[in-house]
Amino acid sequence: MSALAPLLNPRSVAVVGASNDPAKLTGRPIAFLQEQGYDGAIYPVNPRSETVAGLKSYASIADLPEAPDLGLILLGANRVIDAVRDLSGRGCKAAVVLASGFGEAGEEGRALQEELRAAAGGMRILGPNTIGLVNLTDRIPLTASGAMEMTDFPVGHVALLSQSGGILGSLLSRAVARGIGFSKLVATGNEVDLEIADFLDALADDPETRVCALYLETIRDIDRFRKAARRVIAAGKTIVAYKVGRSESGARSAVSHTGALAGAYEVYEALFAQLDILQAQSFNELLDLPAALAQGRRMAGKRVAIVTSTGGAATVVADNVGLIGLDMPAPDEETARKLLALELKEASLDRNPIDVTLAGLRPDLFRAILKILAESPSYDAIAVVAGSSSIAQPDLVAAPVLDSMGLTDKPMLVYVSPEAPNIVNHLNRRGIPAFATPESCAAALAALTPRAASDNGPVSDLPEVDCSDITAGSLNEAEAKALFARFGVPVTREITAETPEGAAAAAGDFSAPVVVKILSSEILHKSEVGGVALNVSPDAVGETCRAMLERVKSRTSARVDGFLVQEMIHGAVEMILGFNRDPQLGSYVLLGAGGVTTELYKDVAIRLLPLTRESARSMIDELICGALLKGFRGRPLADVEALVATILAFAGMVQALGDRLQEAEINPVFVLPQGQGARAGDSLVVLN
Amino acid sequence: MSALAPLLNPRSVAVVGASNDPAKLTGRPIAFLQEQGYDGAIYPVNPRSETVAGLKSYASIADLPEAPDLGLILLGANRVIDAVRDLSGRGCKAAVVLASGFGEAGEEGRALQEELRAAAGGMRILGPNTIGLVNLTDRIPLTASGAMEMTDFPVGHVALLSQSGGILGSLLSRAVARGIGFSKLVATGNEVDLEIADFLDALADDPETRVCALYLETIRDIDRFRKAARRVIAAGKTIVAYKVGRSESGARSAVSHTGALAGAYEVYEALFAQLDILQAQSFNELLDLPAALAQGRRMAGKRVAIVTSTGGAATVVADNVGLIGLDMPAPDEETARKLLALELKEASLDRNPIDVTLAGLRPDLFRAILKILAESPSYDAIAVVAGSSSIAQPDLVAAPVLDSMGLTDKPMLVYVSPEAPNIVNHLNRRGIPAFATPESCAAALAALTPRAASDNGPVSDLPEVDCSDITAGSLNEAEAKALFARFGVPVTREITAETPEGAAAAAGDFSAPVVVKILSSEILHKSEVGGVALNVSPDAVGETCRAMLERVKSRTSARVDGFLVQEMIHGAVEMILGFNRDPQLGSYVLLGAGGVTTELYKDVAIRLLPLTRESARSMIDELICGALLKGFRGRPLADVEALVATILAFAGMVQALGDRLQEAEINPVFVLPQGQGARAGDSLVVLN
Repeated sequence: MSALAPLLNPRSVAVVGASNDPAKLTGRPIAFLQEQGYDGAIYPVNPRSETVAGLKSYASIADLPEAPDLGLILLGANRVIDAVRDLSGRGCKAAVVLASGFGEAGEEGRALQEELRAAAGGMRILGPNTIGLVNLTDRIPLTASGAMEMTDFPVGHVALLSQSGGILGSLLSRAVARGIGFSKLVATGNEVDLEIADFLDALADDPETRVCALYLETIRDIDRFRKAARRVIAAGKTIVAYKVGRSESGARSAVSHTGALAGAYEVYEALFAQLDILQAQSFNELLDLPAALAQGRRMAGKRVAIVTSTGGAATVVADNVGLIGLDMPAPDEETARKLLALELKEASLDRNPIDVTLAGLRPDLFRAILKILAESPSYDAIAVVAGSSSIAQPDLVAAPVLDSMGLTDKPMLVYVSPEAPNIVNHLNRRGIPAFATPESCAAALAALTPRAASDNGPVSDLPEVDCSDITAGSLNEAEAKALFARFGVPVTREITAETPEGAAAAAGDFSAPVVVKILSSEILHKSEVGGVALNVSPDAVGETCRAMLERVKSRTSARVDGFLVQEMIHGAVEMILGFNRDPQLGSYVLLGAGGVTTELYKDVAIRLLPLTRESARSMIDELICGALLKGFRGRPLADVEALVATILAFAGMVQALGDRLQEAEINPVFVLPQGQGARAGDSLVVLN
Repeated sequence: MSALAPLLNPRSVAVVGASNDPAKLTGRPIAFLQEQGYDGAIYPVNPRSETVAGLKSYASIADLPEAPDLGLILLGANRVIDAVRDLSGRGCKAAVVLASGFGEAGEEGRALQEELRAAAGGMRILGPNTIGLVNLTDRIPLTASGAMEMTDFPVGHVALLSQSGGILGSLLSRAVARGIGFSKLVATGNEVDLEIADFLDALADDPETRVCALYLETIRDIDRFRKAARRVIAAGKTIVAYKVGRSESGARSAVSHTGALAGAYEVYEALFAQLDILQAQSFNELLDLPAALAQGRRMAGKRVAIVTSTGGAATVVADNVGLIGLDMPAPDEETARKLLALELKEASLDRNPIDVTLAGLRPDLFRAILKILAESPSYDAIAVVAGSSSIAQPDLVAAPVLDSMGLTDKPMLVYVSPEAPNIVNHLNRRGIPAFATPESCAAALAALTPRAASDNGPVSDLPEVDCSDITAGSLNEAEAKALFARFGVPVTREITAETPEGAAAAAGDFSAPVVVKILSSEILHKSEVGGVALNVSPDAVGETCRAMLERVKSRTSARVDGFLVQEMIHGAVEMILGFNRDPQLGSYVLLGAGGVTTELYKDVAIRLLPLTRESARSMIDELICGALLKGFRGRPLADVEALVATILAFAGMVQALGDRLQEAEINPVFVLPQGQGARAGDSLVVLN
């Protein structure tokens, strides 16, 4: 935490532009600090007052008795630059700049933001255009926002980092209503200096933070983000992210809101999966998932027991829990025996959901059932449904659940069926995650199941392959595959020839029918100009080439380099393997099914580089069409290991070539039956 | 409404088993009726009291001074049957049976439910296992449930019908908190007699009901349901349904909860689409969509303007609105000119979302903007974002929106960004739909866009085709296609022959290479036994048949009927057309892509019969692979009209054959380029 200690735990704070009027925005920060009993030094800077909020006021930054740890700047955009320069010159370690009118405000604002950056020198900046930050663990509010006033906040284990101040305020008010406790709150605003990644990095070392909840509009520095996220996760904490920009309109709106360029959403999704960052699929999940995770418990498997007194609500919960992919097995024999021994007429105790019915709504019965389920080997989590009777008697369900917490380390959570925000709040405050919608209850349970980052495992060394002999431009198929082969990508067996006669002679190497293709770096779609012939008998290759040449010449004036005679592959699953670059997040590889499926069904797996073996394998598992490789409908198992090796070799090539690589695609990759390998079929490479 | 008037508007109510103690469940119904000023006659039936709640009490049903319109039976399951028999004998028109312990309670309960049905005779029954019903329009509560106590309910235009009493209570408490007003509330319970469909039918004529919200676990009588739903929609009202059973566990739980057999969820989805019933995709949408629809306004197109003072929240809303498929165009030139004339520095007025920023958060400005947007030809709906400042000043945004309602008949709705249930309630109560999550705001807007039931349009007459000559059992391909052809399904040109020699002779009819198949009603997968040869030159047909016969005989002992010589189709898109029967909802047809795609990507369109032309067409539009028929990536347009005709002919056959048809599938249907028609390729029929 040390690098950001001046922000999260400043020993002294200069409040520049502080006002004596607590009703004014500029009067709030000192009032907040005093209310929370901040025990560091507070230095108001205001030339027009002797004192501010009972403290000696300083006419200028130069007059301060010491270099403060932190400057909290309440001035408007036009006066911020001088204050930042003065603070930096004075040796202040960090400043929070609340003013807007910088990077988000057109050309002029962007210029001002650059001035701000320059004025800061070595001093760290949070903002501009931020509502500040609050260290709830240590009760240090550094904000002027009414939304972040600390009275009555539940303090807890969730750190909330947001690139939007408004969203931070919104989430905060929702979390307070639900009783979800925070450790740290940070709005990073325009991120002229400090980014979400910097705070993530600091929170990796914060013992009070178990979950980091991120509201993201963009990621400015992907390497810093990745490194920080890995540190957080390695420390046993969880990151949950809600990223806007899933739709084009959302992405456009985010751009105009923060002036940030956003990467494609699907690339963010890949990044999150690779790092094991949980995605909040709805806005409220950015609170619901952390609420569940902050309990600190995890499921050992995927099996949920549901206990209810009201059949309808349990049905809705079970439906959603099933929909999200979790299991709700009936009790095992021993568990069922114990449950039935409770002898409750009308109840359905030997199934799941376990329905005690209204007649069985007694704390002693709930306690007994929870004990049995806690001890049952059949369940990894217990979800309790609180029905309408909880409104009049909130303790009917809540008390037994709270009492039973100590019996087990399985996650226990509650779905509150009627409108009863007080019960949700009561339970959350006491460490029982409680949910008001069946969807969030199911999503929370799913968030507690075992997972692993697909990036786990070692990254291969960059292949050392000399490609300096290859000149820039578009390569023909043979050249492209020769390049692939240097990096270990397996390719179809093939020979090239400049003339039909040469091709005919070389075809003698093949004992089975072959594929004949025209060879040209200028022809992208060979079959469209009649430049591909399948199933050609080796002794017909010469004639085929002559006819092909004539056909191609009649249709295009592109330069022809010669002919390609290629083994014909049978019984393979065809995939596409390609690469692309996201302006924000960097290079990534894509894997999809061959043919129209990839485009039609958007069935594509994406992974950012560098790629681990585990990640390459997870691409195949993620694809719906991956089933075609795994014995779908009686097909032979395909050589998945060879495909994994091909993906890794391709990814290594992409990384090794770096900026030299403009385009690269293998379409198709033939994946043969198990043990027979994979082969690059047709392919495309453009080098810079 | 007349048929259900005794339930919805009884002139007299006998409360059987009424107690004098208002704290007891059995004391509530009369207390509720009296509180609401019910002006019909109330007859308590209780042999142990002279009076109940100040009213003369009757010792038995026989003692009642008249036949009551309605009997509300508060007795336990064991005493219900007698009361029902007595009421029916007395000439009572309808009874509400609250007791549980019937169809939902095992074998014994099911027997009791049958006794109940018999005892009722001609009297209508609501229940058993229900919490009753409330007519809020006329303030008539017929329930013992605390959850349905009427104090402070907003009265409005949404009728809520639920098969679960617990869910009704839950939705009710949520709706009250949100300020959503109801017209009628009905829990139908076990539906021994009256079903959701009966109440839907009655509500078609209720002027106070604009939206019917349904919580469904099953549909018992599909024909009644369909007819009633059509009446409701023809009356200009909207139906929104939340159906549990999307996951297997949910379906299983619903079964054990109500004892009902549930149909497959995807068939329900088809039913809803065919009838133009909106599906609530989440539990809360069952309130959110009706709240939006009850305003009575609809969008003329798909274009939404978003107005905000807080950029972050507007970004999240825009993202979700875009994700759901609506448009958010920037203002047209004239609208932009008017907006910019408002001269607000820092604001972004000429784009969408229109962000006035915190500085522009003034009612006069909001009013001016709303007026401009109301008059703008660019927008079909206006969504306003209320930010955190609304907590302290709820009228800042709410008042201008309420003031502007009269300026336009475009839908206007509000997204409330911070936790502020009071603002949501305030707005909803005044007729402005207000939402606390961006997802529900987007879903509500989508619910307001133009749609039409795909079932619209005439249903073709049942084809009159005599099939009495066809015997039961599995048909071979030629017989199956001959059957299809009788009903107008186009089939490939083909001839059959019993011997290779006959096939060779008949092949003279073909001028191009053909397909040769083995013909057998006992071989389901011909290609697996070597029984299909493609691209056979007509003069090689004899030889091919001979070799094929030998191959097939070596692999199977199935009886061979002969050979099929068939035109070979080129350049067609291959589809699958089939039929199935849902135990609950009846016969339906399925359309999907040929090959593995249908199964892999679950890309299947389903329509229940009878089928309209519009519905057949919508199947193609619904399929992702439908793009392949419409010029995907430069392909030729396929003959969609011919496919529509094929689907209709196939559906007609399914209906005409009725229970005789056990299985029928065409796989593939070849869809040729525009103008060239479609053809049934291979096919399968099993008749009873």
